[in-house]
Amino acid sequence: MHSNKNLPRRDFLSAGVSAACVASVAQAGYFSGVPSRDASKKLGVALVGLGSLSTNQIAPALQKTANCRLSAIVTGTPDKEKKWADKYGINSGSIYNYENFDKIASDENVDIVYIVLPNSMHHEFTIRAAKAGKHVLCEKPMANSSKECREMIAACEAANKQLAIGYRCQFTSHHLSLQTAVKGKAIGDLKMIEAGFGFRIGDPNQWRLKKALAGGGALMDVGIYALQACRFLTGNEPISIMAQETKTDAAKFAEVDESITWMMKFPSGIDAYCSTSYNFNGLNKVIAYGSNGLAKMDPAYSYSDLQLEINGKKVDLPQQDHFAAELDDFATCIRENRPSKVSGKEGLRDLLAIEAIYQSIDKRTSIDVQKA
Amino acid sequence: MHSNKNLPRRDFLSAGVSAACVASVAQAGYFSGVPSRDASKKLGVALVGLGSLSTNQIAPALQKTANCRLSAIVTGTPDKEKKWADKYGINSGSIYNYENFDKIASDENVDIVYIVLPNSMHHEFTIRAAKAGKHVLCEKPMANSSKECREMIAACEAANKQLAIGYRCQFTSHHLSLQTAVKGKAIGDLKMIEAGFGFRIGDPNQWRLKKALAGGGALMDVGIYALQACRFLTGNEPISIMAQETKTDAAKFAEVDESITWMMKFPSGIDAYCSTSYNFNGLNKVIAYGSNGLAKMDPAYSYSDLQLEINGKKVDLPQQDHFAAELDDFATCIRENRPSKVSGKEGLRDLLAIEAIYQSIDKRTSIDVQKA
Repeated sequence: MHSNKNLPRRDFLSAGVSAACVASVAQAGYFSGVPSRDASKKLGVALVGLGSLSTNQIAPALQKTANCRLSAIVTGTPDKEKKWADKYGINSGSIYNYENFDKIASDENVDIVYIVLPNSMHHEFTIRAAKAGKHVLCEKPMANSSKECREMIAACEAANKQLAIGYRCQFTSHHLSLQTAVKGKAIGDLKMIEAGFGFRIGDPNQWRLKKALAGGGALMDVGIYALQACRFLTGNEPISIMAQETKTDAAKFAEVDESITWMMKFPSGIDAYCSTSYNFNGLNKVIAYGSNGLAKMDPAYSYSDLQLEINGKKVDLPQQDHFAAELDDFATCIRENRPSKVSGKEGLRDLLAIEAIYQSIDKRTSIDVQKA
Repeated sequence: MHSNKNLPRRDFLSAGVSAACVASVAQAGYFSGVPSRDASKKLGVALVGLGSLSTNQIAPALQKTANCRLSAIVTGTPDKEKKWADKYGINSGSIYNYENFDKIASDENVDIVYIVLPNSMHHEFTIRAAKAGKHVLCEKPMANSSKECREMIAACEAANKQLAIGYRCQFTSHHLSLQTAVKGKAIGDLKMIEAGFGFRIGDPNQWRLKKALAGGGALMDVGIYALQACRFLTGNEPISIMAQETKTDAAKFAEVDESITWMMKFPSGIDAYCSTSYNFNGLNKVIAYGSNGLAKMDPAYSYSDLQLEINGKKVDLPQQDHFAAELDDFATCIRENRPSKVSGKEGLRDLLAIEAIYQSIDKRTSIDVQKA
């Protein structure tokens, strides 16, 4: 579908992005259309939770991976079992529900458990998957608290299994190129970062608006992308955070945050300011301001059609399937027995920052971010 | 130079801007090219401080006004006296320096004193001008502290003279149209505002980098535009502010702030988040996020070429001379004996917010903004 022949190498380089980056992004093959040479070597993935993200993004992405295959499903909705099994050729012995999930331990079709459940269930299912002897890929946010994150990390370490968090953006050519450009001083010295992600949420009855299931609102669900982008760009952890929250629809957002703005201090002296909302569209960007220019992505976090502009010039990069890239990277990490760059610790760090944001809102003061 | 025949009325209206606004902006005549009918009725303006802003913007703007004329100069640089007098036809009796300035009291050529001095001198010269019986137009920031602002307001009230602050943006068709569009719900209910203005400052020896002269750094000089834009758009005063500062060049910015980010809570429930810097270019915008769309100006604060976009569609408005518009409005206010919308109180309100920002930086906590 994608071809690396489309890589506009000259434009890309002239925008200050290194050849090494182009090569490293291209060779991964997520958008090169290079088929897997040996299907039997693909790692089996059990998808836990067959909601819209699994249905519309992850299951289709699995069909595009070089190193993974959808080999099992775990669902709380019996109606979905046959439909999914037929569509994706799942063995009847590899269909689970939330009660009998632990039997997956003896399923040789499954190497990786990909958890795509409401946030509050990430902790339980990560630990159960680790105890079943499976590697775990868990959607973001990693859990509802840093305490849960630490327990999930410990469980995977005890089982000697890998744990990665679904930070798909870190595998996109756009985010990688932005990071490379900033590191390579394409905009001079980085001075400030601005990032925000939000959308106007629909159905008022969905789990994302229930605190017990989601842990929080816009910040946990989409604000985390802006937070990630700042941490990814600086390569550092925020030292302190100040945040404020506003609620303009108290009924719809009775349980979770509607809109939050926050500011972060990084040890390099860089400040970042961010925003998120469940109540308006159009906020979907990261901007890096440097002493000699600026780099901007807008949209920055959509599933497709990311746009990168460096010093006023569009960087024409290939679009790719973010989930396929993320899955193939995790499979490679497992095969090579090295930790993922989006390991559980990366998820923990985001939760520590998120906890500082919520504390700052409550206490109306700057909060020092705890160390991972 | 500008003609209201260029007003693309249909596009303008379709973007959600009312006909009343178009009419009210157009009728002012700043960009309609309508000449003054009676030069003798023009109010005489004494320009105090003949630096680059006066030289490049305000003196040329005075030539375009319908209701004002440059009738006197006040300068601390003797070399400039003859040059300016020749260029603008200033009477030799209407040339002053900072020592003999008070003699302006008996100068019938002068109705308005326009103060374009370093910030720290605004207080002294506003009070001296009021005591000399002149109306005062003072550049922003109004002064170095809210205490000074209150004294300036009191001095003008005691002299029964008008005081206005040089908030030129409030007179531009772009800012007025943005405000009208937001009030008219062109983007639905306003949910959040983002605003920022900064630039990479040159000469490290200029007065803007000296605390005694400038009072502060980027925030006082250009951050104030972002603050103004938020107050102008909401029509409200911020209740509380959280702010943080970063300095990446401690030598250049030894005395004043380099970069600041801040967040404001407004009584309507709207949050605003803002930024300013003296150390990078490209930050020059205000974005209003609404429940059903967004409106954006970028650039938002330049002397010319402002750009307004509402719901993804460029609003094609005439550009105008901001200073001419501001001067003509002040002259009209004086003639009609009604207070300017950018009165001293407006300047005081900005200083109260600025003081809250600096306090929040010092105390690392949210600061309630004092009432004017």
